[in-house]
Amino acid sequence: MPADSNIVAVEEKKEDGLFQSLTERSKHEDFIRRAVDLLVERVVFGRASRTSKVVEWSAPEDIKQAIDLKVRDGPASHEELLAFMADVARYSVNTAHPYFVNQLFSSVDPYGLIGQWLTDALNPSVYTFEVAPVFTLMEEEVLREMRSIVGWADGEGDGIFCPGGSIANGYAISCARSYFYPEIKNKGVYAVPKLVIFTSELAHYSTKKMAVFMGIGSDNCILVKADENGRMDVNDLERKINEAIEAGATPFLVTSTSGTTVYGAFDPIVPISNICKKYNLWLHVDAAWGGGALMSRKHRNLLNGIELADSVTWNPHKLLAAPQQCSTFLLKHKNVLKEAHSSNAQYLFQKDKFYDTSYDTGDKHIQCGRRADVLKFWFMWKAKGSEGFEKHVEKLFDNANYFLEHIRQREGFRLVIPKPECTNIMFWYIPKCLRSCENEPNYYERLHKVAPKIKERMIKEGSMMVTYQPQGNLVNFFRIVFQNSALDHKDMIYFANEFERLGSDIVV
Amino acid sequence: MPADSNIVAVEEKKEDGLFQSLTERSKHEDFIRRAVDLLVERVVFGRASRTSKVVEWSAPEDIKQAIDLKVRDGPASHEELLAFMADVARYSVNTAHPYFVNQLFSSVDPYGLIGQWLTDALNPSVYTFEVAPVFTLMEEEVLREMRSIVGWADGEGDGIFCPGGSIANGYAISCARSYFYPEIKNKGVYAVPKLVIFTSELAHYSTKKMAVFMGIGSDNCILVKADENGRMDVNDLERKINEAIEAGATPFLVTSTSGTTVYGAFDPIVPISNICKKYNLWLHVDAAWGGGALMSRKHRNLLNGIELADSVTWNPHKLLAAPQQCSTFLLKHKNVLKEAHSSNAQYLFQKDKFYDTSYDTGDKHIQCGRRADVLKFWFMWKAKGSEGFEKHVEKLFDNANYFLEHIRQREGFRLVIPKPECTNIMFWYIPKCLRSCENEPNYYERLHKVAPKIKERMIKEGSMMVTYQPQGNLVNFFRIVFQNSALDHKDMIYFANEFERLGSDIVV
Ligand SMILES: Cc1ncc(COP(=O)(O)O)c(C=O)c1O
Ligand SMILES: Cc1ncc(COP(=O)(O)O)c(C=O)c1O
Repeated sequence: MPADSNIVAVEEKKEDGLFQSLTERSKHEDFIRRAVDLLVERVVFGRASRTSKVVEWSAPEDIKQAIDLKVRDGPASHEELLAFMADVARYSVNTAHPYFVNQLFSSVDPYGLIGQWLTDALNPSVYTFEVAPVFTLMEEEVLREMRSIVGWADGEGDGIFCPGGSIANGYAISCARSYFYPEIKNKGVYAVPKLVIFTSELAHYSTKKMAVFMGIGSDNCILVKADENGRMDVNDLERKINEAIEAGATPFLVTSTSGTTVYGAFDPIVPISNICKKYNLWLHVDAAWGGGALMSRKHRNLLNGIELADSVTWNPHKLLAAPQQCSTFLLKHKNVLKEAHSSNAQYLFQKDKFYDTSYDTGDKHIQCGRRADVLKFWFMWKAKGSEGFEKHVEKLFDNANYFLEHIRQREGFRLVIPKPECTNIMFWYIPKCLRSCENEPNYYERLHKVAPKIKERMIKEGSMMVTYQPQGNLVNFFRIVFQNSALDHKDMIYFANEFERLGSDIVV
Repeated sequence: MPADSNIVAVEEKKEDGLFQSLTERSKHEDFIRRAVDLLVERVVFGRASRTSKVVEWSAPEDIKQAIDLKVRDGPASHEELLAFMADVARYSVNTAHPYFVNQLFSSVDPYGLIGQWLTDALNPSVYTFEVAPVFTLMEEEVLREMRSIVGWADGEGDGIFCPGGSIANGYAISCARSYFYPEIKNKGVYAVPKLVIFTSELAHYSTKKMAVFMGIGSDNCILVKADENGRMDVNDLERKINEAIEAGATPFLVTSTSGTTVYGAFDPIVPISNICKKYNLWLHVDAAWGGGALMSRKHRNLLNGIELADSVTWNPHKLLAAPQQCSTFLLKHKNVLKEAHSSNAQYLFQKDKFYDTSYDTGDKHIQCGRRADVLKFWFMWKAKGSEGFEKHVEKLFDNANYFLEHIRQREGFRLVIPKPECTNIMFWYIPKCLRSCENEPNYYERLHKVAPKIKERMIKEGSMMVTYQPQGNLVNFFRIVFQNSALDHKDMIYFANEFERLGSDIVV
């Protein structure tokens, strides 16, 4: 009896404490070691090789069968938890895989990952120096360096990390509005004229979405025509500005894009800036996607004139392959963020602290608690150096160009844009059944159905992941995104071969 | 010579690939293993014991000296990177420490941490089922369960994870606005009457901040009086609604708080809901802080009536000790989020995919790319069960109550609120020099200076971290936050003793 009850007592004691929010060696060491092993072996190294699958496709119902997603009253054992980890990984898309080229993000960068893991282990919230001393200084340093790279003298200005490029584009609206109409802070839009924003018809949807969220309304986000390469038509911009003024509205902001989401086009910043000067408008450059090109002496001319912008969105989690999420909003102006957003909450931003409270930078954000997204990026930057980012970017452009020239020649491929500017390449894959039917009346209707069919095969086989979409009156085409610098020319051939293998016999 | 040049060649090759965004065993295994070891040994287990310091205080200039924060042109070696990790950890505040009781978050929960690490290794972005199949379903499951706990039949309704409770409170404004005035989406605020929001003078600053960001303006966020316990005065609410109507404004939203930031007060939801019904207003409950109490049968009555709300903010990263960030916005209504925010971007939310695209839930968010904040919380829930969360919450309340009763009796402590409702306890610590001076004219002026002085000592010693603030016309007081369920009654005595040790001989 004593032995048995002893066991029971130990077990109960063990279970008892497992709800506690503290890591203790006696309770957790074994579990954490095994979990970490699983992460390193099965996830980090197990999924990034070309021979593994990009995705283990399962329909929603199958996943619900395979993983018990329901939460329960009682606790799961450590064994069960390890099994859950393996299952979650198994059914998740392998975004670290070299052949995941489906979005404007991919890769699990080794240094970025370790940076994230350290951030998680430290679990900071970046609002005051008191609570996040290192992260506060690190943000300052990284943001200044980014501003320097944008081209603002001595990296002067201001900036923040924010949860995504969409919200960064919202900050641009807020800052521009507050810059011209500071009274809006207290009085709201009722105190100011009817404001309108201009952006390209090919701009990311976030500007419009944030305009809706911020009370401006989608009708007041006026879309400017793009030319055949996807770049903003500057004449149309000026025309639309004049039309808006004539209709009694007040232009205040142009959001220009450096690297559009679908075509990767770079709007011409210099002429757009001239128009902004002429009409006294805030110029925001959404370089969420293309910003990384600034790291390359060879390609930064794509963003010529970016130093003329009042503000810039730049997502290191896109072209520079930082882990999700790492987005910055940079400004040439020093106090606008603060003036637009500060609320001086006394419980957090006390002024009688014993250190210099100008380091308490949280009040210029709309967030209160905030993750330290800076560390992973800083850590990558340390690991690779600016030169490393430069090589990374040049490798991406080199691959993209190689792929482009390869499919330009190859039977079955047709380019959407003859000379894409960024590392996303758009094309139709034409199956055999359509190859000589271009003049038939239902050609485009049939072509429109090709991409979804190839995509289905591709995902079910898990051999790569490439996205497709229609655009304007163009039917569904593929867009392959090069953003992983470990790819090589032979991978470019792999992609093209895969399209042929999956698509040539498709019947539509 | 051959040997030497061989070494050089190998080294060059090695260095060459280190900019690449792919994890490869040959290049990274040694580094990742050592980094993980450092994380587990020095950070996870090394910092959570009561004998370590909560903070290694250093002034900004000293940290800049100690850690080379500047980024460089060339890469750092793996050795240097490991040293950076150790330094970043050393100078960061130890939020995992049991005596970090400074904010409404703390702890590095072991299961939450592993959940985060898995999320990072999978690096998903949750917008489409295609790219984030498991996370999409997991969000659905967890949000439904949370809605059930709120009390909405069968967990029906809608919800999202969002980057913080502040932005969740902004979503409440957006949803309420769109619910009553759907035309605002296209036309903006110009199409609708002048809208006003009501919230308590003790509500979190985010409602006002988001009202500014969203074009409503801080003057149109009307503050309702709180009673002596910090709860919204319902008579004042109705009075202010009538005043606003008389002044020509249009009330549309009341944001009630369940667990205020400073006092932990719970606004009375049932009478507030009655007023909302009477005036046809949206009722939002900001339970960012107090929401966790819903997990406890003993304490959930604090939120009586929460099922009457139209929407709820609930941050598992606060009372439930999930890692930063984990915030939810929950709605009783099914389609409002989508109607308010969807923009149908064709490049992401194609309708001709081969699976049921109702699983592509990203379009109801204002974010595009989005971290999978659900996994860590789901993993904790699996590990502890609902019972575990219940025990966690009850332990927090038990500790808070023990501390409260202890300092109520103890010399030198004076309570700000006699019966706080949540697990934050507010008090003044009165040093000896002030103990019999209460009737002197400059008593409060002097008392105001005590907390910053104690705080400075506390931080420089690193023995605990407790925040202070003034509130209204009350001078600086301490607010200790119990949110780590591994604390015990003896820790409560420790805190009180520490105040005495650090504060009794302060001279002001
Ligand atoms: C040009 C552009 N801007 C902004 C965004 C939004 O960035 P995020 O997904 O970080 O919100 C995107 C996303 O793809 C984009 O392509
Ligand atoms: C009551 C309340 N609501 C909202 C928030 C904002 O939450 P977050 O810091 O996640 O933005 C807080 C933060 O402390 C809070 O206390």
